[in-house]
Amino acid sequence: MDEKLLKSLDVLLGLAYSEDINDVDITTNNLIHPNESKTALFVAKENGIIAGLPVAEMVFRKFDMNIEWKTHIHDGGWVRKGDTVAEFSGSYCALLSGERTALNFIQRMSGIATLTNQFVKAVEGTNVKILDTRKTLPGYRFLDKYSVRVGGATNHRIGLYDMVMIKDNHIKVAGGIKNAIEAIRPKIPISIKIEIETSTLEMVQESVEAGADIIMFDNMKTETMAKAVKIVDKRAKTEASGNISLQRIREVAETGVDFISVGALTHSVKALDISQQIL
Amino acid sequence: MDEKLLKSLDVLLGLAYSEDINDVDITTNNLIHPNESKTALFVAKENGIIAGLPVAEMVFRKFDMNIEWKTHIHDGGWVRKGDTVAEFSGSYCALLSGERTALNFIQRMSGIATLTNQFVKAVEGTNVKILDTRKTLPGYRFLDKYSVRVGGATNHRIGLYDMVMIKDNHIKVAGGIKNAIEAIRPKIPISIKIEIETSTLEMVQESVEAGADIIMFDNMKTETMAKAVKIVDKRAKTEASGNISLQRIREVAETGVDFISVGALTHSVKALDISQQIL
Amino acid sequence: MDEKLLKSLDVLLGLAYSEDINDVDITTNNLIHPNESKTALFVAKENGIIAGLPVAEMVFRKFDMNIEWKTHIHDGGWVRKGDTVAEFSGSYCALLSGERTALNFIQRMSGIATLTNQFVKAVEGTNVKILDTRKTLPGYRFLDKYSVRVGGATNHRIGLYDMVMIKDNHIKVAGGIKNAIEAIRPKIPISIKIEIETSTLEMVQESVEAGADIIMFDNMKTETMAKAVKIVDKRAKTEASGNISLQRIREVAETGVDFISVGALTHSVKALDISQQIL
Amino acid sequence: MDEKLLKSLDVLLGLAYSEDINDVDITTNNLIHPNESKTALFVAKENGIIAGLPVAEMVFRKFDMNIEWKTHIHDGGWVRKGDTVAEFSGSYCALLSGERTALNFIQRMSGIATLTNQFVKAVEGTNVKILDTRKTLPGYRFLDKYSVRVGGATNHRIGLYDMVMIKDNHIKVAGGIKNAIEAIRPKIPISIKIEIETSTLEMVQESVEAGADIIMFDNMKTETMAKAVKIVDKRAKTEASGNISLQRIREVAETGVDFISVGALTHSVKALDISQQIL
Amino acid sequence: MDEKLLKSLDVLLGLAYSEDINDVDITTNNLIHPNESKTALFVAKENGIIAGLPVAEMVFRKFDMNIEWKTHIHDGGWVRKGDTVAEFSGSYCALLSGERTALNFIQRMSGIATLTNQFVKAVEGTNVKILDTRKTLPGYRFLDKYSVRVGGATNHRIGLYDMVMIKDNHIKVAGGIKNAIEAIRPKIPISIKIEIETSTLEMVQESVEAGADIIMFDNMKTETMAKAVKIVDKRAKTEASGNISLQRIREVAETGVDFISVGALTHSVKALDISQQIL
Amino acid sequence: MDEKLLKSLDVLLGLAYSEDINDVDITTNNLIHPNESKTALFVAKENGIIAGLPVAEMVFRKFDMNIEWKTHIHDGGWVRKGDTVAEFSGSYCALLSGERTALNFIQRMSGIATLTNQFVKAVEGTNVKILDTRKTLPGYRFLDKYSVRVGGATNHRIGLYDMVMIKDNHIKVAGGIKNAIEAIRPKIPISIKIEIETSTLEMVQESVEAGADIIMFDNMKTETMAKAVKIVDKRAKTEASGNISLQRIREVAETGVDFISVGALTHSVKALDISQQIL
Repeated sequence: MDEKLLKSLDVLLGLAYSEDINDVDITTNNLIHPNESKTALFVAKENGIIAGLPVAEMVFRKFDMNIEWKTHIHDGGWVRKGDTVAEFSGSYCALLSGERTALNFIQRMSGIATLTNQFVKAVEGTNVKILDTRKTLPGYRFLDKYSVRVGGATNHRIGLYDMVMIKDNHIKVAGGIKNAIEAIRPKIPISIKIEIETSTLEMVQESVEAGADIIMFDNMKTETMAKAVKIVDKRAKTEASGNISLQRIREVAETGVDFISVGALTHSVKALDISQQIL
Repeated sequence: MDEKLLKSLDVLLGLAYSEDINDVDITTNNLIHPNESKTALFVAKENGIIAGLPVAEMVFRKFDMNIEWKTHIHDGGWVRKGDTVAEFSGSYCALLSGERTALNFIQRMSGIATLTNQFVKAVEGTNVKILDTRKTLPGYRFLDKYSVRVGGATNHRIGLYDMVMIKDNHIKVAGGIKNAIEAIRPKIPISIKIEIETSTLEMVQESVEAGADIIMFDNMKTETMAKAVKIVDKRAKTEASGNISLQRIREVAETGVDFISVGALTHSVKALDISQQIL
Repeated sequence: MDEKLLKSLDVLLGLAYSEDINDVDITTNNLIHPNESKTALFVAKENGIIAGLPVAEMVFRKFDMNIEWKTHIHDGGWVRKGDTVAEFSGSYCALLSGERTALNFIQRMSGIATLTNQFVKAVEGTNVKILDTRKTLPGYRFLDKYSVRVGGATNHRIGLYDMVMIKDNHIKVAGGIKNAIEAIRPKIPISIKIEIETSTLEMVQESVEAGADIIMFDNMKTETMAKAVKIVDKRAKTEASGNISLQRIREVAETGVDFISVGALTHSVKALDISQQIL
Repeated sequence: MDEKLLKSLDVLLGLAYSEDINDVDITTNNLIHPNESKTALFVAKENGIIAGLPVAEMVFRKFDMNIEWKTHIHDGGWVRKGDTVAEFSGSYCALLSGERTALNFIQRMSGIATLTNQFVKAVEGTNVKILDTRKTLPGYRFLDKYSVRVGGATNHRIGLYDMVMIKDNHIKVAGGIKNAIEAIRPKIPISIKIEIETSTLEMVQESVEAGADIIMFDNMKTETMAKAVKIVDKRAKTEASGNISLQRIREVAETGVDFISVGALTHSVKALDISQQIL
Repeated sequence: MDEKLLKSLDVLLGLAYSEDINDVDITTNNLIHPNESKTALFVAKENGIIAGLPVAEMVFRKFDMNIEWKTHIHDGGWVRKGDTVAEFSGSYCALLSGERTALNFIQRMSGIATLTNQFVKAVEGTNVKILDTRKTLPGYRFLDKYSVRVGGATNHRIGLYDMVMIKDNHIKVAGGIKNAIEAIRPKIPISIKIEIETSTLEMVQESVEAGADIIMFDNMKTETMAKAVKIVDKRAKTEASGNISLQRIREVAETGVDFISVGALTHSVKALDISQQIL
Repeated sequence: MDEKLLKSLDVLLGLAYSEDINDVDITTNNLIHPNESKTALFVAKENGIIAGLPVAEMVFRKFDMNIEWKTHIHDGGWVRKGDTVAEFSGSYCALLSGERTALNFIQRMSGIATLTNQFVKAVEGTNVKILDTRKTLPGYRFLDKYSVRVGGATNHRIGLYDMVMIKDNHIKVAGGIKNAIEAIRPKIPISIKIEIETSTLEMVQESVEAGADIIMFDNMKTETMAKAVKIVDKRAKTEASGNISLQRIREVAETGVDFISVGALTHSVKALDISQQIL
């Protein structure tokens, strides 16, 4: 977990604490003695890939710095329904006050990792890398991208700042792909890559000649992509994008593209069902 | 939109901006002149209830303070596939840089409002109020609860701080429901209500006698809840909770409970599909 | 001491440090070696109830994390002139630099607790609870309410946000008490109570019928309050308020009201005289 | 009002808002339309000097930026019981939500200014300047010192950082007044003054010879102070301190000291009674 | 000026204000009426390239939001001794209080731009781009890199985060250049470039074969660099680095490298002499 | 190191970290195991006075809290080319990631201390104290003034807030030196000193009679300063300022002034060359 993830997580934990606790868990803190200790389990209620265990741990540490946290599984591990995901002991108050928030995090993250892994498995044996997109929940970009990595895929650019991505509207304003690349190159530091979003083979041709680093094939048919891969001929990296379902992804992978990006990884996330039990 | 919603939204907008823009939209800002203006539309790609228009507007205002924002629909309005949701004009750069974040917000919020509204419609004609739960995404409590209100339902307590909710574990520690209420009453300000989570009719009986303000029937069968409502006999408010599906909710409502809380409203949200078009 | 108190105290300690030390205690730090240690006493110069010992300790800890802090008395304890309130050892610099700020806090807090306790004693044997008001010093709401609890009284609502309190001006705008309650009930979460401020028996009657949770008798004569209590007849809680002096409070208590609120508890606070001695 | 006052005031206003409003004035905002306007008065309920009008205005501006604020009196003006102190118009909600906080500030500040002015008047015709002390409420140092200036007195040092004040304990550690001054002079920037707290004529003599800038006579009898003034003979400034009541201050002033410092100005402040009326 | 520059500048302006003004310009604000206006000039006392005019303007706007700011020259313009650099009118207090801080900024920035421009001119006619390094003053990275751009050069990577730069120590740990690249590629997002620091022709050969994006020739003799350029043969970008003086830079440029990086641009900056005159 | 220095240093360290690391040292953290440890040296590449060792240590502690830091020399110590300045062991990643920032700090600070010390040595044997000025880098006021102290000189006022300094423009507005002093005295706390900037002997005469605490001789010839010193005749402190070079400073010191202020100490700082070696 790198610094930017930790920073945004810290903000989300702050929000989560503030919206759920605000002042005090008025029930638990008034009824259970702060010195009382208990052990709790997280138990999977369905099969899947677990992601977010360190986040859940951080949630409980906000309530009890000295919680004992044991996991037989690490992020990325596969669990079956009924498996114990984590076992942890500490302040009884902490276990009760932190439960809902910890589960809310880990269920979303595991949901993403589980779905991602299905896409990764679908292209096993090819050289393709599965990429995520910017269709993440606002504030959750780094957590969502982390969950994608846990699920076995690779991260696309982080946002609008770390790679140039020239799309339709930009090309129109610049007056063509070549013009766009020539206009932008002198304005950027030497560390920045340029990707072009193309929808026709002509655009692919123009992009590769203008020196693009990566060329995206946007919503192309599979056979068109196969031709595009040949046109590029290793002079740039290639990315397939748009309407990539689990059913179709294998044939896209076999066109020889380097990357396939999939919005569905982080869009409309179905939580993986996990529950807490006090022993 | 009240202050706490606005504060948490402000933090989420900050995170969203930071993760997606960080420094600058390196493509758009280097290719499109800051003075160039355009008009864009948000168009519904499926039927549903819209929620989050003011949030989308705020996203674009982070990029262009003077954006012109027109909506024929307000939050809570019903749209059909193909309907224009909003029309807005301003800096071309702002329209491109803000698009993804604005859509990411409004698609989730509209997804919640649309589902909530189905539950509300399902109990029409009864006196029941549909309530949300604490199964919201960390950091999104106030936005999620707002979307629930937009969908026509009522908010349960905000978090662990604004109402006492005595559950199984608390009752065990306190040695019974009556003991729990007596222990907590003198410690809290006079403004705080007390709810008891019950799973048997005996617990319902004990709760009402101990002076609970609200009594929750947790995962009870419908016929048990009907009996519980009679036991309470208006001496406290009553709430049904646990495994309430669209199929079952009507029969639960007809037991005469005051409230039904539904975790599914904010859990595993399916985004409502909306897209942006530049005119 | 709950979270909100600690947060506001943290801000006040920051302000206190910033305004008094800013950079450095230019005298002490330049003349006394940081490793030199001493023992100091807080000594009561008059009789009273002590409140604020943990606050004083926190002040000194800002200067010396390892101060040894011993008190024979806890907050709420009664001291006589000449009694030692606390004995503490640590960095000589810390003892000198923190003295004034620590005393400024504890003298105000003990002043509030001492006065509050006189009111509480005056109603001993009745069922009445003494309440505070919102006449606290801006920024000191939580500290002042804490001192009130230390003195033996109960807290009214915290502020304008945690309970509805419908007053004269609100009633006029809403067109009557019933209208006001009906207008507000559907807009608030199910956790919020409603109190009505009344000045006549007619208003009391209307409030109880409209389903108010608490009814305040504002500046009523004692005999009127006695009648009001009978009208309410346990269907709501009752509160006496306005011009309640130590002389009068007993007869008010004997009308049978549930609560009496007293602005004087936190208004125009007379500091309890306490001084520091270096041994 | 200088920057440090404004900064600490800003923090106090933030605390005040947070503790009283937190989220929303749940009564007023749900019953009164945000567009409704009214006019209100602040009326003096007793005679005194007004201080804090700009603070009260700031409180209301937190609720309504466009409030119209008119005062016939400025800070420092004298009012009689029944006089209108300020007249202001704006959002009805703002007038109701801000009332208590605004009054809580202005009543304390006017209380300080009123008492200070009695001390200033008591030494009229002499050259003495009345000074405040560090016995201010934590967080209120700058507001309290401002109120003292409004009352006609002069500010002593702000805190422990802007002037050296060598007291009994420092002198013991340093091994005498001369040693203390010689030890500290080379360590401080050239902008800092040195004051010595003395309790005997010998100490006064030693201080003046060691080159103190200001010499404080701490808890001396009036006739001793008169002798001390002669010993100093204009070679340093002189300050009387300790147990200076309104009764005694005139005879102390006539000893010829330059300054008299009075802890009572800000200690145990009695609020000046002011109330708000809606027209 | 992009966002990160503006953010760090905002922090520096805050520090500058805090360290120089803190509370108030105690001389100017007590002697000159806040409504008094004047006009001032910045005048060059030696020849050079101006950088930092918008920064100087921001300094004065901290004191007077409505200052009128006119410049006949923009950042990047060349001035001779005696030329007017800027003419601005506004609050007399603002002109006096902001002078020193504004000059402190613009003198450093213009010093950097002036020196940079000498290096840029020295390679005129070649295709080489002059680059800066990370030898900038902590906190001034973005300002220093901006000044370098104003002087006509190009920015290297911003810091340790936006490009991989594999140096001697990294290569040793990884067991060779090829190993290092293979180890790092799968761990980074697809947007990141890889540069290798080489000191021999063998290392150059290995780097180009392992697929480095950029190859740095560190402290090589000019003739060695010429050979290295041939080895690379356009398969990667090339950068000369280490001990590049104004005297030597032309011959290095003529080896055909793409980039030359120069630490001296931002190291030991000699301020360009500029002074303020009140008209 | 006092509090204000530490606060501004903390901000600068934050900026430095943010601009250089931002998220992660993408090379080092991906190639070197976080548990690997090494030892490194700072070695002087030229003779000089070292300042900033605690700052360099703080830089490394941001990366590895448990670094072992050993110095045979303290700030203020003299080193020769080749001397080891510090030896430190800890995380290999920390040593590589912190190197550049640590060196950037210590090279500037040592540069200031080294130059300052030359001025201090030049007046050895006189009673003069060398002072710094406000010509420091924005944000570096406290660090620069610290380095000046390390070099053996004394600090002038910190900024515009801690001492009155009446200059030409102020005198014109006030209508003379006497008027200026009389106007300002009643507005300031009793702790503040007043300095007058004079350029003629008449101004010196007027200043001393008006009761200035310090009189600055601005850009006067040496013989004029000698006369000025006689006019003042110990009734105030005296300061020489303006164009004081190492060549001239001795003769200025011998006029008998108390202080000489030298802008060059912190202006156009030449870094002292120091490098890091991994053992």
